[in-house]
Amino acid sequence: MQNLCLEKAFLFIERGPVILVTTFDGKKNNVMTISWTMVKDFDAQFAFLTGAWNYSYKALMKNKECVIAVPAADLAKKAVEIGSCSGADTDKFKKFKLTAAKSKYVKAPLIKECYVNIECKVCDYVKKHNIFALKGVNAWIDDKKKDKRLIHAVGDGTFILDGEKLNYKKIMKDKLPAGI
Amino acid sequence: MQNLCLEKAFLFIERGPVILVTTFDGKKNNVMTISWTMVKDFDAQFAFLTGAWNYSYKALMKNKECVIAVPAADLAKKAVEIGSCSGADTDKFKKFKLTAAKSKYVKAPLIKECYVNIECKVCDYVKKHNIFALKGVNAWIDDKKKDKRLIHAVGDGTFILDGEKLNYKKIMKDKLPAGI
Repeated sequence: MQNLCLEKAFLFIERGPVILVTTFDGKKNNVMTISWTMVKDFDAQFAFLTGAWNYSYKALMKNKECVIAVPAADLAKKAVEIGSCSGADTDKFKKFKLTAAKSKYVKAPLIKECYVNIECKVCDYVKKHNIFALKGVNAWIDDKKKDKRLIHAVGDGTFILDGEKLNYKKIMKDKLPAGI
Repeated sequence: MQNLCLEKAFLFIERGPVILVTTFDGKKNNVMTISWTMVKDFDAQFAFLTGAWNYSYKALMKNKECVIAVPAADLAKKAVEIGSCSGADTDKFKKFKLTAAKSKYVKAPLIKECYVNIECKVCDYVKKHNIFALKGVNAWIDDKKKDKRLIHAVGDGTFILDGEKLNYKKIMKDKLPAGI
């Protein structure tokens, strides 16, 4: 994995992919799958929705850290399976043969098999809406991954991979942040 | 356009598409393009991010209503162009030849050319994070649209259409809401 400049991290979230979120509760690593997520600002700010019903919630609230790991097409089935069991009774890193790699600034682990990993601090939890606000502090990319298509959840148990690409850079040239 | 049951509206947002948001400020219709958006709950609850810098913000705050119109591939270029100009000096419905159709429960218009339209009430605005919380009250679908691929913004001026479909309904059977 190579370093990904933080200003480019939003490029892997804005399109709305399924993400994996890793946490470390002080004793063990865990990972959950989320598709209710969005970009909050160009400087690696993100939001996702979860709450006390979720096993990862306690670790998020306690340590105020996580890693957003973005799986590509090769991990699609695993990402769905990870979202269909709980860290309460499952060591998901072991069960799904995920390689936990050391983060630089947070205790939650990177997932080596993922295309992109974003180390995040929890900035806020908006309890009324179950929304976590996050700020990326470091990011990694596996540029050697062959199939870079991200996974999108429809919500009915079907998923869609990134398809045809369109280029509208000319129309958007005044709207893009510098360096993108 | 046929009626779409509200419980299925999230199926067109969860995958993270570019959406158009229409508003009516009491005098005229307007429309903006947003890609920072997410599902908030299965019962047609959504969130998107915008703020006072955006021309549509005033109308959203004043009338607490909007329509989330989901464009399919045929509107990709228009969706980008709509997001690259402002309602402050442009009649976007006229400029982009969009057909405003009457909503049932809100004053903001439906966009006839869109694949799905969701009439929404603004429930809350979380000022600290510039997040609008919305509740769908009625929804429409154009099932006769031939190309139903939705559009995803990468964030660098390129866009990606829905691609290959994967079916993991069996794995997710215990996680899906009833009727989906």
